[in-house]
This record gives sequence, C-alpha cells and structure tokens, in this order.
Amino acid sequence: MTTGALEGIRVLDLGRVLAAPSAGALLGDMGADVIKIENPGTGDDSRNFAPQKNGVSYYYKNFNRSKRGITLNLKKGKDVFLEMVKNADVVIENFRPGTMEKFGLGYEDLKKVNPGIIYGSISGFGATGPYKYRAGYDTMSQAWSGAMSITGWPQDDPVRCGASFGDVMGGLNLVIGVLAALRHRDKTGEGQKIDISLVDGCITAEASMMQVYLTTGKVPTKNGNAYTSSAPGGGYHTADGYMVINGSAPKFWGILCEKMGRPELVNDPLYATNPLRVKNRESLDKIVEAWTTTKTTSEIMEELLPSGFACAPIYSLDQVVADEQFSVYRNMFPEIEDEESGTMRFTNSAVKMSETMPEIKRPAPHLGEHNDEVYSEVFGFSAEQIQELKDQEII
Amino acid sequence: MTTGALEGIRVLDLGRVLAAPSAGALLGDMGADVIKIENPGTGDDSRNFAPQKNGVSYYYKNFNRSKRGITLNLKKGKDVFLEMVKNADVVIENFRPGTMEKFGLGYEDLKKVNPGIIYGSISGFGATGPYKYRAGYDTMSQAWSGAMSITGWPQDDPVRCGASFGDVMGGLNLVIGVLAALRHRDKTGEGQKIDISLVDGCITAEASMMQVYLTTGKVPTKNGNAYTSSAPGGGYHTADGYMVINGSAPKFWGILCEKMGRPELVNDPLYATNPLRVKNRESLDKIVEAWTTTKTTSEIMEELLPSGFACAPIYSLDQVVADEQFSVYRNMFPEIEDEESGTMRFTNSAVKMSETMPEIKRPAPHLGEHNDEVYSEVFGFSAEQIQELKDQEII
Repeated sequence: MTTGALEGIRVLDLGRVLAAPSAGALLGDMGADVIKIENPGTGDDSRNFAPQKNGVSYYYKNFNRSKRGITLNLKKGKDVFLEMVKNADVVIENFRPGTMEKFGLGYEDLKKVNPGIIYGSISGFGATGPYKYRAGYDTMSQAWSGAMSITGWPQDDPVRCGASFGDVMGGLNLVIGVLAALRHRDKTGEGQKIDISLVDGCITAEASMMQVYLTTGKVPTKNGNAYTSSAPGGGYHTADGYMVINGSAPKFWGILCEKMGRPELVNDPLYATNPLRVKNRESLDKIVEAWTTTKTTSEIMEELLPSGFACAPIYSLDQVVADEQFSVYRNMFPEIEDEESGTMRFTNSAVKMSETMPEIKRPAPHLGEHNDEVYSEVFGFSAEQIQELKDQEII
Repeated sequence: MTTGALEGIRVLDLGRVLAAPSAGALLGDMGADVIKIENPGTGDDSRNFAPQKNGVSYYYKNFNRSKRGITLNLKKGKDVFLEMVKNADVVIENFRPGTMEKFGLGYEDLKKVNPGIIYGSISGFGATGPYKYRAGYDTMSQAWSGAMSITGWPQDDPVRCGASFGDVMGGLNLVIGVLAALRHRDKTGEGQKIDISLVDGCITAEASMMQVYLTTGKVPTKNGNAYTSSAPGGGYHTADGYMVINGSAPKFWGILCEKMGRPELVNDPLYATNPLRVKNRESLDKIVEAWTTTKTTSEIMEELLPSGFACAPIYSLDQVVADEQFSVYRNMFPEIEDEESGTMRFTNSAVKMSETMPEIKRPAPHLGEHNDEVYSEVFGFSAEQIQELKDQEII
C-alpha cells in the first residue's frame, strides 16, 4: 500500500451527503488524514440514505471511505473546533453560505487561529450574489445551469443527467482548489478560501455548447444523441438493443457504406459530404438503422471496431461492473473488508497515478468511532477533557 | 491581476480538441506557463470546429486561452521535444495510448531526460486493459459507463447528457492528478504518470446509482426527472414552461399542500408519509401539476423560495448568461480583448480562490504564434537553430 501524494496533510471534513464528502474521500484516497466531523447523535443525513443493508447506508459508506470519524456539536463546541483548526491544513464544508459564520467559524474566524488554513466550501450558487443563501442540489444545478435544456429528445421535456454530475464536479473542483491552495501556502504561508458553486461547475461542463451561444447568439437546444454539425452519428437500434455510432468522418463514412453493403452511397449526391449528410440526416439515419437492426450490438461492434470506428454499446450498470476492462484492468470497483458488512464493493476514484496510486485506505467510520483516538492523539485533549465533552454532549 | 497558485510551473500541452486542452487551460488560468504544441501547418483539429467567426474557431479559443502556442512535428522533432522536457514540469496529452511511445516519447523515454517529469495522459479507456487502443469520445464514455442507461424517460431511448461531462471530468481528474503529483515530486524528486480514462470519470460520477447495484443487485434505469426514493419531486409543467421542484421532506410537503390550497392532503392516507407518496406518485404528480400549470414558473418560484424550498427554472443557455448571479457575481462569462475578434466572451473555470483567483491570462494563440519567443527565450535555441527547424518543417 502506498501512502499517497497527500501524506502529512490533515483535513477537517464537515461535508454532508455527496459533494463535499466525495472531495474528502478523494483527498483521503490520496493519503491525507481526513477527519469526518458529524453532529453527535444524528450524524450526516446520508447515514439514512438508500441503498442500505442491515440498517447501514452504503451510500454513506461509499462517500466516506478513507476517513476517520468523530462527533462535534459545532454550536456548543466552537472552541473545540478552533483548537483542531490550529493543527489542520484544510477545512471543507458544504453548508449553505452563512452557516459557518453563524457558528463563529467562518473563514475569517478560522484564519485568526491559523493564517495558513485552507477553507474549502461548496454550495449551490457559491458565496456571492443574490442567490447565495438558496438551497442547491444536484438536480437544481443541472436546471439552473441550462444543462437540462440541452439534454433529451427534441419532442420531449428536458431531462436531467442520471449521474449526479453537478455534485461530483463540485467535489472535483473543490479538490483542485485545495491542492492549488496548498501549493500557494507552502510557498507563502498564506491560506485562502475556495468557493465552489454547483451551478458554476455545470456551466463549465457545457462550455462547448455555451460557446455556440456566446459566439453566434443561437441558443442550443435538446438534440437527442445526434451531433448538430456531423452525420451520420448518434443512437441506432440494433437487433437486440441500442448503441451509439459516429460515422461522420470521410474515412468512416466510406467504411460504413461498405459494411452496410451500400458502397454506392459514398458518392450519392444526397450524402457525399458531411454538410449534405447533416442536411439529409433523417433519410440517412433510416438507411443506417435498416442495417443496424439486422444485427446484434456485438455483431456491429465486431464489424466496425477493427478499423478504429467509434462505436459503443449503451451499457446498463451491471454490464459495466461485469466488464473486466473496468472492474479488473481499471480497478473501478475495489472490494474492501468492512467489519459491519464483510466484503463490500465501492466505486473507485478515476485519478490513476503510477507512483502514488489513490486507493481506499479504510472503511467509512461508525458515528464517533475515532473520538478517543483523534481527540487525544491528534489534538492533545486529555481523557478528562474528552469525558467532559461527552458529558456535555459536545461530542 | 494575480499571478496564480501555479506560478513557476511549466506545462507542455500536446492536447487536442477538448479533454486535455481544457486541463491545460485551467492550469494556465491558475498561473502555470502552459505551452500548447501543435503540428506545423494543420494544428489542433478543433481549429476547424464550430462555432466560427471570420474563419476562426471560438471552440478552439475557449479551450486554449491562457496558453502560449508553438508548432512541432513530433515525428521529426523528437529531440527538440526531449530538449524541452528537460526544462518542463508537466507534459499533458490525449493521444490514443501507444502513440507517444511510437514517437519515442512515452513516459519511460521522457523520464530518462527528466526523472521529475509529470506525464499526464487522457484517453477513452485509459492505458491498461483490452480496450486501451480504442477510440474514445465523450458520447462513447457516456455510453460505456452506463450513464446513458440512467438518463432519459422510461418509455424512450436512453439519451446522452448534452453537456460533454465525460470530456470535462477527464480534464478535471487530470488536473487533480497533476497537482497531487507535483506535491509528491517536490518532496521526493520523483515524477510519475497520470493515466485518466474518460469512462472511469463517468463511472465515478454515477457512484450513487452504482452503489445501488453493488449493494442490492438491482439495476437502476432511466427515471426521467424523478428521484426513485422520494416524492413529490421532479419536473412539472407551469403556465409558461417547465421547472423542477423537490417537495418530499415533511416540512416542504406541508408548505406545498398549503400553497396549493390543499391543506387536507398533508395527512391524507394516500400521501401522509414519503413512502406513501412514492407509492402513489402518479396521482400525486397530477395534483401538483394541476396547481403548477395555473401559474408561471417565476410566480411559483416567488411562492416557494422564501421558505427555503428547493425549486428551479429550467434555464436555456441564453437565460444563464443573462442572469447576473452567474455572469456578474460569479464571473462565469468574462470578456477579454482578442486581436482577431475584438472583445470575446469565454466560459470561465468554476474554481474560485480568494487569494490566487484563476483567471484568463491571454487569448488563445495563432498557430505557432510564440515559436520564436518560446524556442529562444524558454528553451535556449539560437536564431540559427530555429531557422533550421523551420526550414526542415520540424516547427
């Protein structure tokens, strides 16, 4: 087991549910000492989320691996938290903006006890502007950013992406900010605040479509699986399913015509060039689908792949896990031993490094599992002080 | 203008089109000296992509801001590239795996001339496993990862997310790997290879859905805009459009019933608890929509928002740009002066830092714009050597 690129970095993770906890998990996978801090008694709301087994949330387990866990009531335990900040490098949270300030634990407060502290925050809309106090969840960020307006079929209502990419990109953007800020701090001693908005992240993700509007004034809309500027391409039904094919480049258009047994189409006045194929997309797609529906998805893959053709089956999630490319060669679903669940499988991080490979360091903590260890060994509280904090229900 | 957290870091950016170039642009926004290297004569394919104005691609401009640009034929100019690697910290590329090795410029080759070099690679499937040589684009990664299988309406074909989130997350994951590797290199002197797969990134983004399958064996499918485990929630038509609302928490269910003028529903035996509301979702959604269709989206926002209700309009891309929350307070569409285009607007990065704010440092380069400056001042080539490289069409 490698120790990781972030060995020696201590992170106080106040994150809840998905966005900030996923950032904490990645920092932990990369070797940081991540301490998840939860409210005593209740803990992170996601401890009650589906899927569950034996009353334990595997949703929670996935996003909180590679962390130690302690409890702290931030309202009553403000001084305890400030004490911890003195011995930490990074704090991350995804409360609504203003919440930490109400506790007396905003960035300006933390900076007073540790000028080098890096304070990473994720919220729906960020910490500036008129919407800053509004609730923001993944679906809301997909809606506000316009991402939903370009997702779906032209004749149907807009639809969200089933992957929570707003939340997940929020976590990735936070990790980037934290790592860049660590570099700046190591050079200057100066900490800073990272202010991530879920909507901003979604806007960045649609940059190529947004640039169409910013440049031409034309507003991109839903287009199913087709590209607006090339053809043939998109989704096609097969004898046993549905797949995506991109055959618009001249080389691949030629190969496709040959495979379809329609070599005469290559120079057909309706389809000879990409602009013509875009113009006559409807009739062209019927021709392509007349061929694809005579074969299974894997038969078509076998015919097209050897020439470097871009095509793909639309995998269901079980097919992804069953495919050794992803489960074995990319190690995307590692198993670890967990005392509650025996063996359990996670979804791994996509950051693969040759010398300091991120990996799951430990299972997610029970609520307050590491209270004694962390408060005494890491932050120097005495056994008596810890008992007092417990008696007062501060931890 | 701040200099940025990555001041002093030099990046050689061999990226093409979107994934690696977007990573290079973010590193440049954060203050790294990013040198975009393109094939002489042709350059990055995306120089021909839409949208264009006066024959110039604004797609290219967006993903290549904050970089200087030089030309180099990697086949003929292997030694020139190795000379540059000696004076660089990071190389990024998104060729198919094996391409750089064919040039004699794989990680193992670069390491020999600079053991501290960080080599960041993005490909469709990563550099391991049976699929490693296959073409991988954004849509393919959404298909292979299963993300498309959970996106769309139950009765319709699966659909891709209109934002190129596979490509964009590839870029974000690469930046995370590079920044973590820089930290490790500064401590140990040792460089490493970062190996990012577009499909891996999409798999990580769907972790919450994947965990359902890994835990229960049930395979999540397309569910439109509804959550599987809570109700009411999802998309609702209004008098002038379509919006998303999440009213499943007890508090918000109560508020919604009151706003709808149906206070008796709160304790209705069909809808009193979340499990009941999930069970009777169909009739419940009809009741909610009977109310939402009597009002405009903004009227509903005005009624629900003050109580902290999570609801959002489905913005089109022009509405996003017109909303000052995003354009002014979050500065997501900054303007810069560009000699070719006068003023142009970009889509900004979502990483917001208080002390070292990432920002667009310069417009994208013309092909080979900084050849003389970079080859002479940065890498120490003489005027004669540069002329010889030009004569031999190496640069």
